[in-house]
Amino acid sequence: MNAQKISGQAHGVSDAEARDIVETARAAVDAARVETRRYFRGGALETTSKLAEGFDPVTVADRAAETAMREIISARRPDDAILGEEFPVREGTSGLTWVLDPIDGTRGYISGTPTWGVLLAVRNADAALFGIVDQPYIGERFEGGFGLAEVTGPLGTAPLGTRATHTLDEAVIFTTFPEVGSKEEGVAFHDLASRCKLTRYGMDCYAYALLAAGQVDLVVEAGLNSYDILGPLAVIEAAGGVVTDWKGNSAMEGGRVLAAANKDIHAAALERLSQA
Amino acid sequence: MNAQKISGQAHGVSDAEARDIVETARAAVDAARVETRRYFRGGALETTSKLAEGFDPVTVADRAAETAMREIISARRPDDAILGEEFPVREGTSGLTWVLDPIDGTRGYISGTPTWGVLLAVRNADAALFGIVDQPYIGERFEGGFGLAEVTGPLGTAPLGTRATHTLDEAVIFTTFPEVGSKEEGVAFHDLASRCKLTRYGMDCYAYALLAAGQVDLVVEAGLNSYDILGPLAVIEAAGGVVTDWKGNSAMEGGRVLAAANKDIHAAALERLSQA
Repeated sequence: MNAQKISGQAHGVSDAEARDIVETARAAVDAARVETRRYFRGGALETTSKLAEGFDPVTVADRAAETAMREIISARRPDDAILGEEFPVREGTSGLTWVLDPIDGTRGYISGTPTWGVLLAVRNADAALFGIVDQPYIGERFEGGFGLAEVTGPLGTAPLGTRATHTLDEAVIFTTFPEVGSKEEGVAFHDLASRCKLTRYGMDCYAYALLAAGQVDLVVEAGLNSYDILGPLAVIEAAGGVVTDWKGNSAMEGGRVLAAANKDIHAAALERLSQA
Repeated sequence: MNAQKISGQAHGVSDAEARDIVETARAAVDAARVETRRYFRGGALETTSKLAEGFDPVTVADRAAETAMREIISARRPDDAILGEEFPVREGTSGLTWVLDPIDGTRGYISGTPTWGVLLAVRNADAALFGIVDQPYIGERFEGGFGLAEVTGPLGTAPLGTRATHTLDEAVIFTTFPEVGSKEEGVAFHDLASRCKLTRYGMDCYAYALLAAGQVDLVVEAGLNSYDILGPLAVIEAAGGVVTDWKGNSAMEGGRVLAAANKDIHAAALERLSQA
């Protein structure tokens, strides 16, 4: 587990505690992998609509995976808080909160695509300390924080690192839906995308993982929750990227998110989006 | 290799020859897997633009993979013709043609997504006899024809079968780009998609594989070449689906393609698209 790389110093956490957090996070995501794979492509799932007006299915797998993660985290880290998509907040006393999205990209999940993921982050009041983006079907895990920035998957384990694209006309930009957020947000996104080399859709949280892996330059979304972005944010920051809202402020609480491979391309994109 | 299932009778091919074709196809796609994985996410690839006005990169991997497939097919099946995306046609005398797209979804490939694929089909004048859609990064292979309809991947081997969705308002529809084909084609697509339950983008050839696997109901595209659709067509037909152009005629030569899970949902979609 590359224990020698793990360091909590940047966040005032002992290396031993940082290792415990990383081990706990991996155990939790391993359990979520089992639950999400169990129901993936499994035919008729019990789904309900969370939003009366929209299509946002909650699957059996979503709840089973979050339950499995909560049990592991609660047992190993009883003083930490837990904020998950599916169940009420568990309060803590340590100042650390585990932020969980058991299936980010439920539309992708029910369509069978390999683009949804299990998201986990550990945060304090100021920062995301450690995060994981996991794609259980592929068996691919992106980790960042406490000195780690790695992907483990079909090609083995490799370091993560964002790329050095500096201008929009060389940039590859991703978002999940062409209908980004509100009408105004959509206009701002397409104004930015029209200046980029290539625009792609449909990747759910996997787009953020690709950014951390140096494959794409920008991911722009709107209407996110904290649990949608904190895991990706930790991984991308560890890989050298920049994640903010569309004004350049913290994206830790979600909302409008701009993830970029580096400061230059972030600034170029922010100049367009900040007018929205 | 499930040799007992393989039968060429429906196409006037002996079972022994059908088995030889299947074995050759698998060997060719195995070789393409090696070449495409070698360069995937490998950093700076030598790319050139095939279309002066567009963005359609050809990678080193594309050529290496097609070369590897051609060598295997030529050695094992010297009398068959070969039509591939990257190199000139090789004429044959057997009446059978191997149709190859070494990397379908080059934009996805260079962006690191797991949605591109190696496509292979064996056809005669009238029909696609056998096809493969392979996703080398995931290690997932969809096969159809000669009595086979199977997927082998991270969850093991399972039968393919399309699903029984009968009405558009229950259907999940996929296409690669929101800007489907020409302006007129795009209007027709969005007219259809607006009547469906869920529209998703960005899956490249993987969308057809998901249809064969019973995960989605419709895939609609335009501007395809024969080598873009013949492999998926063979797999989908073997899985119980229907693939035609937007008038209900053969899609074997590409163009505007409508792939559907069954006759009912095909008819419902065709009614909208046929007006384009």
